[in-house]
Amino acid sequence: MYYIGLDVGGTGIQCGIVNLEGKILYSEECKTRVEAGFEAMAEDIGNLIENTVSNAKVSWEEINSIGIGIPGVANREGLIIHAVNLKVEDAPLGEILRKRFGKKVVIENDATVAALAEYHFGGLKGSEVGVMITLGTGVGGGIIINGKTFSGARGMGSELGHIHIGKSEFDCNCGNNGCFEMFCSATAIIKKAQLLISNGEHSSILKEGSVIEDITAKDVFDSFRQGDLVAVKIVEEFKEKLGFGIAMIVNVLDPDVITIGGGMSRAHDVFLPNLREGVKKHVIFKSNEVAKINIANMGNDAGIVGAAMLGI
Amino acid sequence: MYYIGLDVGGTGIQCGIVNLEGKILYSEECKTRVEAGFEAMAEDIGNLIENTVSNAKVSWEEINSIGIGIPGVANREGLIIHAVNLKVEDAPLGEILRKRFGKKVVIENDATVAALAEYHFGGLKGSEVGVMITLGTGVGGGIIINGKTFSGARGMGSELGHIHIGKSEFDCNCGNNGCFEMFCSATAIIKKAQLLISNGEHSSILKEGSVIEDITAKDVFDSFRQGDLVAVKIVEEFKEKLGFGIAMIVNVLDPDVITIGGGMSRAHDVFLPNLREGVKKHVIFKSNEVAKINIANMGNDAGIVGAAMLGI
Repeated sequence: MYYIGLDVGGTGIQCGIVNLEGKILYSEECKTRVEAGFEAMAEDIGNLIENTVSNAKVSWEEINSIGIGIPGVANREGLIIHAVNLKVEDAPLGEILRKRFGKKVVIENDATVAALAEYHFGGLKGSEVGVMITLGTGVGGGIIINGKTFSGARGMGSELGHIHIGKSEFDCNCGNNGCFEMFCSATAIIKKAQLLISNGEHSSILKEGSVIEDITAKDVFDSFRQGDLVAVKIVEEFKEKLGFGIAMIVNVLDPDVITIGGGMSRAHDVFLPNLREGVKKHVIFKSNEVAKINIANMGNDAGIVGAAMLGI
Repeated sequence: MYYIGLDVGGTGIQCGIVNLEGKILYSEECKTRVEAGFEAMAEDIGNLIENTVSNAKVSWEEINSIGIGIPGVANREGLIIHAVNLKVEDAPLGEILRKRFGKKVVIENDATVAALAEYHFGGLKGSEVGVMITLGTGVGGGIIINGKTFSGARGMGSELGHIHIGKSEFDCNCGNNGCFEMFCSATAIIKKAQLLISNGEHSSILKEGSVIEDITAKDVFDSFRQGDLVAVKIVEEFKEKLGFGIAMIVNVLDPDVITIGGGMSRAHDVFLPNLREGVKKHVIFKSNEVAKINIANMGNDAGIVGAAMLGI
């Protein structure tokens, strides 16, 4: 049996045929025509699925299901409640594809989908309550309980980037101040570096000949490794807040495994050692064992593979 | 079939025979001999169960299971990991009672047990993801997902009183500053009133002839209803923080129903109207429907009835 997995992003859509071992046997992709509207998008997705199956030379009888990860919220019936980057709201993608292909269609938030891939084949393997935290442009969260995705009664939960951590220098897009992602996203780290440097602090973060708009999170971590004092200040706060945020997650969800993904996870040499001790300081039950923390390892495959696993 | 439910507290232990309709057919109680040590306590609990069954004139064949709520953390095998108020740690209560009675024994945190009672017969009835928040001396939390208690992989989760809400005037016993319960427990409200009054603010909260040590949360709510300005200040902050805290719970768990219990829930006329609007202001998805919020209605029966339902 094969499982179709789609990763629908704001710029591109990837579709893959996945087996039960989590291997992508064949995949295709197309651009996301956000401006063309939802109907065109649903048509594009349907065509992409059709072409992928046809070019993979797989028969439809061998296809179990279609799973789709979206940057937004969907309900159990496959209705996309909203996906801001796709400019889509109340869109019955599941229904359309079910009618077209006669297969089970499951749609989930992309961070939750990535967590599911990690549960089946990566960092969350064997976990009873597994949590994935993605540190990227924002901070995303995915929760897997007993092998099933959990995002609350209406798919709005597991927004771990929007738990409150403290008073932040910048307000969050969600309207609050002090969200986890205002401390621990790449965006937050870059903004902090820009602020300190434009306030006159000298740092190797800003390379010769570049402007503060060019600063990346990688620049900050690189300078940290070289002992740059501004970078040390930024990264130490990042680490402290990462530990605190995870402690809040432990107080609510008590996962046995937490896996950290997203672009910033590449800097794990900087933040992973001692992270668990940083978490322990802030959990309520300090004498208990807290979750194991590791780095996600499904990389770019997580979107397709996790989506495919939605159909299991 | 009947279900035994026990509510083990720091001062007393209650044991009841409960039917599937959630009715307590017969109950007995005894004192908690905390200082006598765990073995004596386990013996007392066993004897209480034996006496209750015998005096209720119920045959052991009709007993399905024994469920126990404790003020602490227990694992799935019925090992009490710790229960500070019982001065108990790593105590195999489940094993001892299973051996003595040959019945299934399930032990859970008391806030989770209360939530389970509300799920079966009270405010959380019919919920898919139900959350109970108890506003009492502290702030407690219980989570029910698809009819099952959820407290994480090792029973340490659902500590909703210890999510971070903001900077608080007083530090929390858990070692952090800014916990939900430092704003929304009776203790927090009393401390705030004591602080304002000892700083010289005049208020009807402090009754003639009494001292600030006598202030109760009820006094604060009573004065609020009479328009006392100090009480208004305290209660308005309480309401704001209650909404914010619940919004954080929505961002992670997205419950369809939240029920509020504990002693302070009696002041629901003060905080329940507009509470949902206060929550909506702070959730990430503002256009979506947020959880229904109601007041728990199982009252003092919740401990025994919820514990009994652990065996289902």
